[in-house]
Amino acid sequence: MSDIKVSNKKLKIGIVGGTGYTGVELLRLLSLHPNASLTVITSRGEAGLAVADMFPSLRAYVDLKFTDPAQADLDKCDVVFFATPHGVAMSQAQALLDAKVKVIDLAADFRLQDTAVFEQWYKMPHGCPSLLKDAVYGIPELYRDKIKSANIVGNPGCYPTTVLLGLAPLLEQGLIDLSVPIIADAKSGVSGAGRKAEVATLFVESSDNMKAYGLSGHRHHPEIHAQLCQLSGKAVQFIFVPHLIPMIRGMLSTIYVKLSDQAQALNLQALFENRYKNERFVDVLPAGMLPETRSVRGSNQIRIALHKQTDAGYLTLVVVQDNLVKGAAGQAIQNMNILFGLPENTGLDLVPLLP
Amino acid sequence: MSDIKVSNKKLKIGIVGGTGYTGVELLRLLSLHPNASLTVITSRGEAGLAVADMFPSLRAYVDLKFTDPAQADLDKCDVVFFATPHGVAMSQAQALLDAKVKVIDLAADFRLQDTAVFEQWYKMPHGCPSLLKDAVYGIPELYRDKIKSANIVGNPGCYPTTVLLGLAPLLEQGLIDLSVPIIADAKSGVSGAGRKAEVATLFVESSDNMKAYGLSGHRHHPEIHAQLCQLSGKAVQFIFVPHLIPMIRGMLSTIYVKLSDQAQALNLQALFENRYKNERFVDVLPAGMLPETRSVRGSNQIRIALHKQTDAGYLTLVVVQDNLVKGAAGQAIQNMNILFGLPENTGLDLVPLLP
Amino acid sequence: MSDIKVSNKKLKIGIVGGTGYTGVELLRLLSLHPNASLTVITSRGEAGLAVADMFPSLRAYVDLKFTDPAQADLDKCDVVFFATPHGVAMSQAQALLDAKVKVIDLAADFRLQDTAVFEQWYKMPHGCPSLLKDAVYGIPELYRDKIKSANIVGNPGCYPTTVLLGLAPLLEQGLIDLSVPIIADAKSGVSGAGRKAEVATLFVESSDNMKAYGLSGHRHHPEIHAQLCQLSGKAVQFIFVPHLIPMIRGMLSTIYVKLSDQAQALNLQALFENRYKNERFVDVLPAGMLPETRSVRGSNQIRIALHKQTDAGYLTLVVVQDNLVKGAAGQAIQNMNILFGLPENTGLDLVPLLP
Amino acid sequence: MSDIKVSNKKLKIGIVGGTGYTGVELLRLLSLHPNASLTVITSRGEAGLAVADMFPSLRAYVDLKFTDPAQADLDKCDVVFFATPHGVAMSQAQALLDAKVKVIDLAADFRLQDTAVFEQWYKMPHGCPSLLKDAVYGIPELYRDKIKSANIVGNPGCYPTTVLLGLAPLLEQGLIDLSVPIIADAKSGVSGAGRKAEVATLFVESSDNMKAYGLSGHRHHPEIHAQLCQLSGKAVQFIFVPHLIPMIRGMLSTIYVKLSDQAQALNLQALFENRYKNERFVDVLPAGMLPETRSVRGSNQIRIALHKQTDAGYLTLVVVQDNLVKGAAGQAIQNMNILFGLPENTGLDLVPLLP
Repeated sequence: MSDIKVSNKKLKIGIVGGTGYTGVELLRLLSLHPNASLTVITSRGEAGLAVADMFPSLRAYVDLKFTDPAQADLDKCDVVFFATPHGVAMSQAQALLDAKVKVIDLAADFRLQDTAVFEQWYKMPHGCPSLLKDAVYGIPELYRDKIKSANIVGNPGCYPTTVLLGLAPLLEQGLIDLSVPIIADAKSGVSGAGRKAEVATLFVESSDNMKAYGLSGHRHHPEIHAQLCQLSGKAVQFIFVPHLIPMIRGMLSTIYVKLSDQAQALNLQALFENRYKNERFVDVLPAGMLPETRSVRGSNQIRIALHKQTDAGYLTLVVVQDNLVKGAAGQAIQNMNILFGLPENTGLDLVPLLP
Repeated sequence: MSDIKVSNKKLKIGIVGGTGYTGVELLRLLSLHPNASLTVITSRGEAGLAVADMFPSLRAYVDLKFTDPAQADLDKCDVVFFATPHGVAMSQAQALLDAKVKVIDLAADFRLQDTAVFEQWYKMPHGCPSLLKDAVYGIPELYRDKIKSANIVGNPGCYPTTVLLGLAPLLEQGLIDLSVPIIADAKSGVSGAGRKAEVATLFVESSDNMKAYGLSGHRHHPEIHAQLCQLSGKAVQFIFVPHLIPMIRGMLSTIYVKLSDQAQALNLQALFENRYKNERFVDVLPAGMLPETRSVRGSNQIRIALHKQTDAGYLTLVVVQDNLVKGAAGQAIQNMNILFGLPENTGLDLVPLLP
Repeated sequence: MSDIKVSNKKLKIGIVGGTGYTGVELLRLLSLHPNASLTVITSRGEAGLAVADMFPSLRAYVDLKFTDPAQADLDKCDVVFFATPHGVAMSQAQALLDAKVKVIDLAADFRLQDTAVFEQWYKMPHGCPSLLKDAVYGIPELYRDKIKSANIVGNPGCYPTTVLLGLAPLLEQGLIDLSVPIIADAKSGVSGAGRKAEVATLFVESSDNMKAYGLSGHRHHPEIHAQLCQLSGKAVQFIFVPHLIPMIRGMLSTIYVKLSDQAQALNLQALFENRYKNERFVDVLPAGMLPETRSVRGSNQIRIALHKQTDAGYLTLVVVQDNLVKGAAGQAIQNMNILFGLPENTGLDLVPLLP
Repeated sequence: MSDIKVSNKKLKIGIVGGTGYTGVELLRLLSLHPNASLTVITSRGEAGLAVADMFPSLRAYVDLKFTDPAQADLDKCDVVFFATPHGVAMSQAQALLDAKVKVIDLAADFRLQDTAVFEQWYKMPHGCPSLLKDAVYGIPELYRDKIKSANIVGNPGCYPTTVLLGLAPLLEQGLIDLSVPIIADAKSGVSGAGRKAEVATLFVESSDNMKAYGLSGHRHHPEIHAQLCQLSGKAVQFIFVPHLIPMIRGMLSTIYVKLSDQAQALNLQALFENRYKNERFVDVLPAGMLPETRSVRGSNQIRIALHKQTDAGYLTLVVVQDNLVKGAAGQAIQNMNILFGLPENTGLDLVPLLP
């Protein structure tokens, strides 16, 4: 509809696919956002159902019903979030752009610039390759300026957000010895698997239990790898092993890198603190302190700790976030705020729920 | 095949429907049972798959594959367990009995003598009403003598086992004032909901959460009610509210009864201890001690505590069991041991897994 | 300091005992409260430590340090919350009142009007019996008018809030047959046990496990009982059995009452909806819907469902709340808002964290 | 007392420190061990208490009481297990050896041959350095022959068992490129922290949460490092980062190694299967299958999966065990069986508890 900059005006918000965990998280956050007006929420399967009947936590906060996608007037919105499976946003993006609606896709359609890589990992042709050049990879701390003027944001995957914000200060300065691979051993709560009826993620299967998965290939590997090469300007070897942890929310990535000779001598703690000193949502912990996932539960915060293994010349990074907030819906709203010239923390001043 | 009494001979065991939680629990227990030889395990959906590929915990203990039900030689078994949805056992029982195979049904087909009640609650006609008179309700501590000579055992529901063993000493002696309802507030771990792909029992939905359910009618209500009337010889009013608790296994029932005037004066602790003094699997806790569900995890034990609310003339009972063992597979094996004249604890000397 | 009514002025807040779960929950909620200025937080053991070093979730939101109680200028505050063990508030209340500071005690010192009952259950003499007549029992939905003009609020226990708000509509109208006892079977998450180093509440002891406790007497029994008698104007028999559930937060009470003959004929659903129609934090669920604890996680909401067992003439109530919010810190802030003439939901518009 | 080899004779067992998690796990396993007779269990704090009053899971299985260590006739035992804090076994070992009692220490006193390293990490002088040369590091799959004739076994730490059994086939054959560090990213259930009253391991602190810890130095680092050097015959660089996971039991180690040029060309899957083909408790999973911790819950099994990252020349190993069984009490009993010439799996045929 419009791309005017607003302040106390309400943005008309559309959400496509509001029945998954990223959808309900968008609803939780946007229902209290001072500049957001929830206007349309679509669901093919649940059309006609009151949103609060599916998610009673939203009673008194959201009084919309799910709309059939075919009936939804998304082009009257200011911005549309896609909280859908991969492949949906790319089929609707052009029409929305034509109607001057901005698009934030929480799936993978606009994360990878290389359509061949996309098609290899997502097993579908890309529906609008011509739009990719206009899409920005939505990590504000890395690409804020581009996001300001973008019309499409490819909101990053949850794992990539932790790995990239953990490594950016080193990559930007060329401080990693890239002759050995970067290793990310990542751990995710079960909500990362989505709200799908599946035996493997039943309470009885996932509780009091953990496992590694995706060793033979996880879709976030090419996404991270592309960004690592982008940020470093070089070819990077990257080993990525995700694990499923019996938590609802929360993600912790432990990252192992060999430091360059130059980096060995630097005060990396200071380097990180300086890199992120103006970033509201990135918290570099004091030296010696380690983060817990619950310290960010329900918030848009990401916390980073670093520890030098001096004998081996390695640096270990520990990064935590809430996979549904900074890893998905919160970052998407942060991107929305930037797209519309709002203060970046609008609606995102959230104290983590601890305990 | 045969109904001869055995001691060090191996019973040939068939399991129909081995892919659910009661199925894998039968496999866990029977794989170490000294008189059991796992012979056939059927699954329509998984025929050909090695059991241990579905349940890696059974690697090196079970080397059978799932068989298609249509191909399974169940009539060569000594006993067949049905770990199936309701309605399966009643369609196959007659043929097995004709082949002199004993039947233990872990579903509801042989729990209710009144077919009208069965059909009301299970929404299907009963397939073999003429066999019901031969079926015994399989709580050994209540019906051991009948089980000895039975050919069909209707293995009880998990909730009923706790409520009935908790109340039997009072009901048998007419010590409850039945002018007010008996109330059972029961709590179950999520494995009670079965191994089905459903959103409601996903880890993310069930963890760090609890709820009551089935207030408008739970299938264990008529089962318990019928037995309460049977044990007391009178009409009984019964209120039953089950709850879902974020535990894998474990069931705790809190039962509230008004004592008769006679009972007010009795030493009920002694009465319970005496009633169960020869029962290997029923543990009446010392006065003042309360049970935890984990104190029976993985074992066939049921533990009972009683507390008199003297001012109100009420007795509160707290009963715990592992819903998959004494509440399902363990009790089924206890019944098998009785059917074949084996010591009742054969294969059931299981120290609970604590912690 | 002052008792002036404020609107955009900031109230100076003191918290005595800020290191427990109710303390950190007060901090979480007050740090975003538009009319609150966190001024003093005391802790004997942690004096000098930055609050955010103990609770990293508060980094960037709370920059106070813990103060030694002996050094704390509590009399410069507008209101002081006691998030302390029982017995502390009553030793300091008089001095604060003299300094015109309002007192909200989250412990039990001002919940019971009968000092003999207090002393029997809390094993200590009451330190300021003369102040009790000025103290109001802080459930706003029951005692709002008294709270408006009070100087001391005895913030209720977590269990009592669920039972009393569940039963009030019936008790106020005399709709319960009090010839049989009211039974409350209550279930609490482990945070109700407090942040104390104890074996019984270790993760390994409490996880995948549940138990009943306190059958021989729980301190919330006399508190609930006194209020039940107060609300009904009659003697009430009351049976209360609490249970510990492996959840961090959340409380569910299942309440069983015999309806009076008059009540049998009434539309109780309508009665409840009408009673609470103007109450922002009490949500009577539509008939047939049952609440989950997670539907209130992190919020000040309480949700109530009712189900008539017509054959027995009983009503079953299911009530859920977050024990740390409506059951403690949230209700305390709701009381603060009333004490100072603020809109009652100020700082309490919290969308529950689901999932 | 005696060191005679037995078969159907009962070994007299002493346990020093039976109140922790490794203690109760020894009791669980030994109470059903056909050649074990639980004779003495000591506890300074709980002397006189029936063991089953502390651990109700042991009711009917263990009828001993805790004995004061000063009163305990440990020298009448055949073998004594130390399930104590570090430093206890080394103060009593000589006296027991003099009485011809074999010693199995589940703490660290006999794990490290280098007393300087011991003293650096455990902050106490070693009490009996002269006995170290007789002590064997108790991983049977690596040191079986030495264990057969030993009198003291230093039972390994939980983390080391996973890392060493995971790497042994490679180290023994020199297949790792040691110019880059071996990295072990290890994850443990909370029972690894022991049964101590501490805030950090409360349910409310540990549930729905995870963290890394010990980056600046964990005591299992020098233990693993010494064995890595021992097994490879070379200096090894080793990075070790443990994590705490909200599970009761279970440990998963993800290990990253650079393969030597020679190893790149080998069929490592076959190499591992061959190395462990006669090992009852080591299960090399088929290629492509990944282990879950619950697949070993309550059992002495360890499962290993390997995955080659061909582009980087790295191998990733995923190893799971139950930290209280193969990581502690089960391995200790395996060692006992070897010490006394019993079949190694005696008392250890345990089907994992899944679900």
